[in-house]
Amino acid sequence: MASIPSTPLLANELDIVIPTIRNLDFLEMWRPFFQPYHLIIVQDGDPTKTIRVPEGFDYELHNRNHVESLLGKRASCISFKDSACRCYGFLVSKKKYIYTIDDDCFVAKNPTGEDINALEQHIKNLLTPSTPHFFNTLYDPYRDGADFVRGYPFSLREGVPTAVSHGLWLNIPDYDAPTQLVKPHERNTRYVDAVMTVPKGTLFPMCGMNLAFDRELIGPAMYFGLMGHGQPIGRYDDMWAGWCVKVICDHLNLGVKTGLPYIWHSKASNPFVNLKKEYKGIFWQEEIIPFFQSVVLPKECTTVQKCYLALAEKVKEKLGSVDPYFTKLAEGMTTWIEAWDAHNPSSEATGSLANGLAKSV
Amino acid sequence: MASIPSTPLLANELDIVIPTIRNLDFLEMWRPFFQPYHLIIVQDGDPTKTIRVPEGFDYELHNRNHVESLLGKRASCISFKDSACRCYGFLVSKKKYIYTIDDDCFVAKNPTGEDINALEQHIKNLLTPSTPHFFNTLYDPYRDGADFVRGYPFSLREGVPTAVSHGLWLNIPDYDAPTQLVKPHERNTRYVDAVMTVPKGTLFPMCGMNLAFDRELIGPAMYFGLMGHGQPIGRYDDMWAGWCVKVICDHLNLGVKTGLPYIWHSKASNPFVNLKKEYKGIFWQEEIIPFFQSVVLPKECTTVQKCYLALAEKVKEKLGSVDPYFTKLAEGMTTWIEAWDAHNPSSEATGSLANGLAKSV
Repeated sequence: MASIPSTPLLANELDIVIPTIRNLDFLEMWRPFFQPYHLIIVQDGDPTKTIRVPEGFDYELHNRNHVESLLGKRASCISFKDSACRCYGFLVSKKKYIYTIDDDCFVAKNPTGEDINALEQHIKNLLTPSTPHFFNTLYDPYRDGADFVRGYPFSLREGVPTAVSHGLWLNIPDYDAPTQLVKPHERNTRYVDAVMTVPKGTLFPMCGMNLAFDRELIGPAMYFGLMGHGQPIGRYDDMWAGWCVKVICDHLNLGVKTGLPYIWHSKASNPFVNLKKEYKGIFWQEEIIPFFQSVVLPKECTTVQKCYLALAEKVKEKLGSVDPYFTKLAEGMTTWIEAWDAHNPSSEATGSLANGLAKSV
Repeated sequence: MASIPSTPLLANELDIVIPTIRNLDFLEMWRPFFQPYHLIIVQDGDPTKTIRVPEGFDYELHNRNHVESLLGKRASCISFKDSACRCYGFLVSKKKYIYTIDDDCFVAKNPTGEDINALEQHIKNLLTPSTPHFFNTLYDPYRDGADFVRGYPFSLREGVPTAVSHGLWLNIPDYDAPTQLVKPHERNTRYVDAVMTVPKGTLFPMCGMNLAFDRELIGPAMYFGLMGHGQPIGRYDDMWAGWCVKVICDHLNLGVKTGLPYIWHSKASNPFVNLKKEYKGIFWQEEIIPFFQSVVLPKECTTVQKCYLALAEKVKEKLGSVDPYFTKLAEGMTTWIEAWDAHNPSSEATGSLANGLAKSV
């Protein structure tokens, strides 16, 4: 029934990161696709609760106690009681690639009724270049049956390395609380058979539900911020990461793709609860977006870490006046980089090398 | 068989412009969709040749003699022996909207086997706003079943007026000569069910085969340049128009959409002939693209005409050194605006009003 690739791609180079507060029965449906990979499960909330993982999966499980014991006082940068805690899994991974998925996401079917191997498509997206400098009207030019159209400059056809692959969702779309309230019955039934690069200079709303990235190229920027317990805001973790990531990718000449693959998002979250988490973000983002649209990183920032620290500085300087939360968030960003570097000792060098390669393309 | 809308949309506000050198038998297939509209046929090449138009269509036919008699010495800005002559049809139209299509383009079918009413989809694209300031991952948020996703700033959800709707092609893709030569058998079979805005600041390769636009909003910028007879270049007419249009739309806060509808492009043009026409463009565009990517129009340019004349000035100044052709082209651009204004006396005022509206959105 399921189309299992004969050889799983990058089985030794990719970790699957899953934040959760419940038993992971949803993995049963993913078994044909995920079983060859190592799972990093980040248990959110009460660490004494037992999370059941179906048999046969290779996994490690981290709860809040692990986070605090590994990071010590730097554990403050990892959110608690919010799926933003997933970025801890990115930090402890030792692999080149990460795929992260929510536990209410299931295998979707393509229009011909076949199960979609989401991970395989993400890997294809990551292993082919991106084209952020010019729009290709036939979408991803590196897909079978597609190419660059007439008028596409030849000097730009090599593209740039792809750092992020952002997948989409059938069934429950990723709407904010006001849209959920206004359109409670809207379902996404449109299968758009496309992958595309988000152009340079354009921000996008990055959703963490179905997301893959190259940890060596962009990992240190995949910080999901301070959300949930003790924070004035939630549901902006992935958005925050996406805005930071996009600005840094643009600066370092790396690409972000969006489109395929789809997963099946099963359950709409409660719009009233969401509204409570989101409402500050809804007006804060009116100042955050112009900030990210205009921020310029110094030329000296040649690694992801340097970019991220420079960005944290600018967040404090420009958004601190919006709300004291942003000063705290900027500190969290700095702490995150310290924690990242402490546990990924060679990553600064790697980041630099990756960037060197990117620039030479 | 064909899905004919009960009431044709904008029948009195849209002209269909077709450049041609042959009998227009291709219109038979379009009859259910085009018959309610007025056609402006621009006969290219020998004006003594008779072009047969199937019965029952409402049309006017202009040949080179008409062009010269109407425009006098300004007729020099209209290309001869090249489909770039189509822009003459845009100039003589008195309607708000234009759809232009090549005579080797036929009705395509959607994945469920129904005939695609390309014109109806273009009109939908033009009548709904564009979103150039932020990327929406679920594509056109104004389509049925879609909306803005979480994290999309609310202040940007009104969008901006749509000036251009760029449709795509099934079967023969719009490739340049080198790609045609390398991939002679490639066919576009992928139906991507999406419409999207080309983001602000991003250039795209605009193809004239299947294109609609709002003449009041952007008409004077839809000049297809100097191509064909007596010129050192061909097959860059629509590209040139697209780059100018995009830069001006970005400046005036207007939108450009691409994606649906598809037409069926029947016949690949001869790649050897194409190479001869294109080869200068292939290396010139390596300087043209950076020019358009960096050009900034003065704030005083508040109408399309003013923008276009400022752009012509910059083309002369910055591209004149690439080849004397660009000095001639810049003069053609200026002549075109003179001709446009002479035959569209109120358009400067209209352009200004449209811009005022655009800015207030």
